Amino acid sequence: MTVKRGAGGLVTALMGLAEHLDEAVWVCAAATEADAAVAAEHEGHPVEIAFSPEPQLVDADTSVDLPTLNVRYVEVDHERHDMFYGQIANPLLWFVQHELYGLATQPDITAATHHAFAEGYVAVNEQFADAVAEEVEHRAGGRAIVLLQDYHFYLVGDLVRGRCPDAVFSHFVHIPWPGPDAWRVLPTQMRERLLRGLLGCDVVAFHTSRFARNFLSCAQELLGLDVDVSAGTVQVGDRTVTARAYPISVDVEAVEKTAASEEVAARRSALADQHLSGDDQRLIVRVDRTDPSKNIVRGFRAFGLMLDEHPELVDRVTFLASLMPSRTDVPEYADYLAQVGAVVAEINARHHAESQPIDLRLQEDLAFAMAAYQLADVLVVNAVNDGMNLVAKEAVLVNQRDGVLLLSENTGAHEELGPYALTVQPFDLQQQADAMYAALTMPVDGRRTLLADAAETVRRNDVQRWLSSQLDDLSSLADDG
Amino acid sequence: MTVKRGAGGLVTALMGLAEHLDEAVWVCAAATEADAAVAAEHEGHPVEIAFSPEPQLVDADTSVDLPTLNVRYVEVDHERHDMFYGQIANPLLWFVQHELYGLATQPDITAATHHAFAEGYVAVNEQFADAVAEEVEHRAGGRAIVLLQDYHFYLVGDLVRGRCPDAVFSHFVHIPWPGPDAWRVLPTQMRERLLRGLLGCDVVAFHTSRFARNFLSCAQELLGLDVDVSAGTVQVGDRTVTARAYPISVDVEAVEKTAASEEVAARRSALADQHLSGDDQRLIVRVDRTDPSKNIVRGFRAFGLMLDEHPELVDRVTFLASLMPSRTDVPEYADYLAQVGAVVAEINARHHAESQPIDLRLQEDLAFAMAAYQLADVLVVNAVNDGMNLVAKEAVLVNQRDGVLLLSENTGAHEELGPYALTVQPFDLQQQADAMYAALTMPVDGRRTLLADAAETVRRNDVQRWLSSQLDDLSSLADDG
Repeated sequence: MTVKRGAGGLVTALMGLAEHLDEAVWVCAAATEADAAVAAEHEGHPVEIAFSPEPQLVDADTSVDLPTLNVRYVEVDHERHDMFYGQIANPLLWFVQHELYGLATQPDITAATHHAFAEGYVAVNEQFADAVAEEVEHRAGGRAIVLLQDYHFYLVGDLVRGRCPDAVFSHFVHIPWPGPDAWRVLPTQMRERLLRGLLGCDVVAFHTSRFARNFLSCAQELLGLDVDVSAGTVQVGDRTVTARAYPISVDVEAVEKTAASEEVAARRSALADQHLSGDDQRLIVRVDRTDPSKNIVRGFRAFGLMLDEHPELVDRVTFLASLMPSRTDVPEYADYLAQVGAVVAEINARHHAESQPIDLRLQEDLAFAMAAYQLADVLVVNAVNDGMNLVAKEAVLVNQRDGVLLLSENTGAHEELGPYALTVQPFDLQQQADAMYAALTMPVDGRRTLLADAAETVRRNDVQRWLSSQLDDLSSLADDG
Repeated sequence: MTVKRGAGGLVTALMGLAEHLDEAVWVCAAATEADAAVAAEHEGHPVEIAFSPEPQLVDADTSVDLPTLNVRYVEVDHERHDMFYGQIANPLLWFVQHELYGLATQPDITAATHHAFAEGYVAVNEQFADAVAEEVEHRAGGRAIVLLQDYHFYLVGDLVRGRCPDAVFSHFVHIPWPGPDAWRVLPTQMRERLLRGLLGCDVVAFHTSRFARNFLSCAQELLGLDVDVSAGTVQVGDRTVTARAYPISVDVEAVEKTAASEEVAARRSALADQHLSGDDQRLIVRVDRTDPSKNIVRGFRAFGLMLDEHPELVDRVTFLASLMPSRTDVPEYADYLAQVGAVVAEINARHHAESQPIDLRLQEDLAFAMAAYQLADVLVVNAVNDGMNLVAKEAVLVNQRDGVLLLSENTGAHEELGPYALTVQPFDLQQQADAMYAALTMPVDGRRTLLADAAETVRRNDVQRWLSSQLDDLSSLADDG
């Protein structure tokens, strides 16, 4: 069993499905040999899984009192998966959608790319489409609501709709959707295929209205389709496809429960002893994967610049960064991690006094992250581009020190939390340094109000509402159908 | 006197003004000490200049039979010019608009950038606005058509309009205008200032309708203004601003005259002896500045790939590249030039037989370029992004060997010449290699028809039409006013 809390929070959010939809089947990749064994044993049929407190298979003849989920594993051949995930979805689509390429020299689309798209991305999408279509046909008699997730499966909606015209399809894109210029990096037939795949759905959903408008703009510019921006729709033959924003959120209750745990308390106590024992000590925090899109290097450089300009803060402010090394097999990621290390070493050497100004932890430690959120005086989220950024939402929920959120204007979360944060411009080192200083010197009343409003915003629109508002919209589409 | 044919062809195009508009004053920077001396001597007033056969100052009491232009030089302080041009216009705006930054690490906006914008870009724009406003007020009694050019002067229109509300303003943007995502690289106040500057004009003009739509999209997304995409307008208070495409072109007569010169004939003869003496020898040609936006490295790599796949072409095909080193004081440009050299050396070493497959010339030689256009079997224009690309237009006018144009979908010229070219995708090495091979093996009838149609398209919409269609539109605005 490999169901675990993903770093991005998506799995957590989708877990909410289990409690709301008794009939739901979750079609997903068999990620480990254990998964594959389960899949093989059940000949591709769904299995029932309880996921609390630890994921476990539920026997058909055992009744359990725990929430369970029907999971259908799709077993993807290793070589095919490598092309699908390792060559197309993860580097190419991720970089295109986060606009990370330096286009003068990256990317190089080659015959290998075309091959990986056809034999990897398209083939895996077809495999998943087969599995989904079977579930729709056999379990639901052809009528079902199909919720597709993320950039790995852009083709599935259109493929399944061909076989199951009575189903209602939604595709949720969890990462940024840039405008047409960015998509022109992909060969014509590739970008058109991806767009047509999504346009096979009834609803294409994003975290922000900006991404939804960019999607409509792509339909217009790249496919020449008729778009109604104010209605948020695009005409595809006789079908009307809606692009809409449903900002994802966190499971407020679960986050608060974790934050209240003894494990987090122990981490918190250790961190406070280390960094907040003196009078007037302050903590700047960031928690991220070491992804170039997260803008970690510029964040540290802005911090170093602030110390240059305000040397009185040396020994009084620590920048605590809990970073999870990510995709280190991809050269751009390995290079980026090396740059992170170099800039931290440089700043710690330049400003070293009694303590090191940056406390860098390369780790994946949820309890540590939660404790850091609680103790942060400033939380830094300065991403180059980010679909949502759930770190911002979790942190404002649990923070205990009237912490100030520094939030990049290029995160999805900024559409909701921008008014309750100090907006940062991800490419502007000086502005980020100024914002850090402003946050550290802001009077407590102002900080308290911002934090309370931010937390209230997250509470009002939690992950259940994210899910239920989508299901409400799709149910009414299904009823109309 | 520094009036000369610019590499981009813009100066040539604007020269056409002199023959059409007797009353016109050209306000431009004094680029040399000689210019500055002229400016000082005339105390900032316009001087009359004949620019054919060689640029020369015309005395007020001499009558000449040559077309002349009234030029008003604006003397820009060296330090200010460096900030304006060397720090803002040339690297920052050029890179943003050509989408050349690898955003994970570039650019770094710093206090120096903010300073260069305020004390360089804004200050120089104010200086030019003063000069333009004086000309409008004193010479034209406040009523005039003001044609502003390019990315150096985005603020001038709005500044002059404040002083001269009866004038009609057009601003022509000669480089790509990307969508709002790309502009978010600049700090909010900077991008808003630039947009507001342009929106001070009545018409904002681009080479393609795609750039015009991107501009409208920016007004909507970045400033929240009301836009009518089908009308091509944006509402700014009580004013309606039009975004429109006027594709620039070449002076057909002048190009044909140059092509027919003895100097070009001599170059052509030498080139033919060197590369086309054997039976069935073929020539691939590119002529460019060594700008990362031109995609020179990928073009050579695609050629190398084609030779890998079609070794029978070695010794039968030469890739002749006449490249003008450009902005070599900018690190990205110096690096790029080094990459060009490396890839040429590698391919020439890998495929060396009787002759070297790539003949690289680092030079600025118009006659050579013209001869190369005439002899090309294939002309490669594979730019990452390009406002127009006049090389494509010149080459199809003068080519003598039924040459095939390979044209990037991301050039402005592609909106007009795409149907008569083989479209290339600038990031797809394989597709570019395939297109080169297809061009080299295309039957002569097909090549001849494409070339004739391309040349006819350029003849129909030459630079005079570019100018007159703008002036017609602006005159009718002026009459309405």
